[in-house]
Amino acid sequence: MCVGLDPDLNRLPAGYEKSVPGLKQHLFDIIDATADLAAAYKPNTAFFEFHGAAGWTALGEVIRYCKTKSPGAVVIADAKRGDLGNTAKQYAAAIFDHLEADACTLSPYMGFESLQPFLERPDKAAVILCLTSNAGAADLQYHGSPPLFLKVAGLCHRWNGQYGNVWMVAGATRDPADLIRVKESAEGVPLLIPGIGAQGGNLSSVLGAVHENCLINSSRSILYASDHRDTIRQSARAEALSLVESMRRELKSFFL
Amino acid sequence: MCVGLDPDLNRLPAGYEKSVPGLKQHLFDIIDATADLAAAYKPNTAFFEFHGAAGWTALGEVIRYCKTKSPGAVVIADAKRGDLGNTAKQYAAAIFDHLEADACTLSPYMGFESLQPFLERPDKAAVILCLTSNAGAADLQYHGSPPLFLKVAGLCHRWNGQYGNVWMVAGATRDPADLIRVKESAEGVPLLIPGIGAQGGNLSSVLGAVHENCLINSSRSILYASDHRDTIRQSARAEALSLVESMRRELKSFFL
Repeated sequence: MCVGLDPDLNRLPAGYEKSVPGLKQHLFDIIDATADLAAAYKPNTAFFEFHGAAGWTALGEVIRYCKTKSPGAVVIADAKRGDLGNTAKQYAAAIFDHLEADACTLSPYMGFESLQPFLERPDKAAVILCLTSNAGAADLQYHGSPPLFLKVAGLCHRWNGQYGNVWMVAGATRDPADLIRVKESAEGVPLLIPGIGAQGGNLSSVLGAVHENCLINSSRSILYASDHRDTIRQSARAEALSLVESMRRELKSFFL
Repeated sequence: MCVGLDPDLNRLPAGYEKSVPGLKQHLFDIIDATADLAAAYKPNTAFFEFHGAAGWTALGEVIRYCKTKSPGAVVIADAKRGDLGNTAKQYAAAIFDHLEADACTLSPYMGFESLQPFLERPDKAAVILCLTSNAGAADLQYHGSPPLFLKVAGLCHRWNGQYGNVWMVAGATRDPADLIRVKESAEGVPLLIPGIGAQGGNLSSVLGAVHENCLINSSRSILYASDHRDTIRQSARAEALSLVESMRRELKSFFL
């Protein structure tokens, strides 16, 4: 299970100060409540950038808090970066060295060199968008034959053979047959699967298609499991546990 | 002419302090030297993010400096963002409202909703990657038939018909025949054209293909026109003037 950290002032539970320190405290409480359950945390950079320099500082603090409280968890900066080689180097340094994230989501539109500075870090993971969970995914990702997302999966498979640290994003809201095609085109590449919960993806059909080497992400249903600070830890933990238990049940029914 | 602002500590001319304030002062000097020549400035967010919260604050100051010193210029945040709808809203607010940029570069991989919060701002421009200047562009952008970049150009044309504020990125290093196909597939959509200068694009062949409704970007050849603070304003201005004069000559030879 991956816990997505998207701090949104409009949804902040009551009892927290409506400010960057309040948002940060809410995330700290979520991390405390899930530290022994989460295999990964995925802070979304946009929700921090929204608050300018103060948000950027908070992002670093949240990443370090994850690493302190849950040392076994992978911290994925959900930044969806992708730019020319010399620019990509700056992004890789910002995210891996300054923010100290373990992994970063990346957009493949600009191709290899835009990913290279991330691939060249054996201690980190490059999490490349393949088939996303949103409706607009259809605009480009199904273009061509084979569809673009399978072209991306094939490239990720090749790059993973070369660098060994490639992951891909594949959305839980997509046709399970497409998830199977993604897995088959990129054997050995772990999948980060968002879209369960608020976005409507179905855990059972996802785990029927992909039953190993994957992270199932949940953001809003854990973060906002309660609307008050007094109960948020308990509710977030219950929600996270419920997801983990559901995953266990599904996988058990698959393997037994 | 668009002046790209990519502040790089490793290339900072001598005489500036090797720090965020030094980088900012260098950019201020470049802006002073080109304020009456530039139709646009394009600060690259990666080079600011590299410096964390201090870089983020400097980015806002550089954008405001452009707008004060060169009020007619468009300020394009070169951020290449692209994410789910609710995340894209945060990015649009961060870039258009907090940083006060006039335009933002965007990656189209996730499709319409990832661009929508930017499109829905009639006072701002959404500058969508179509055909990029780097070698890796070939990995995905030529996939399918028609090639993906023309699929993107067609979508941009449609979205521009609906929203009126779409621009596209098309690289100067590409085959001029492809630039012509981009223009024809997206009539009326302005082009931001990077890749002249350090990246090797040829001004004459670009302006032979695209002779109106475009911005020609130059970053490093202007920013690092001299290696010392004492001469940087003069050298940067001379370089910028030389590019503008070359553009004038090329366009004159085209139209007369």
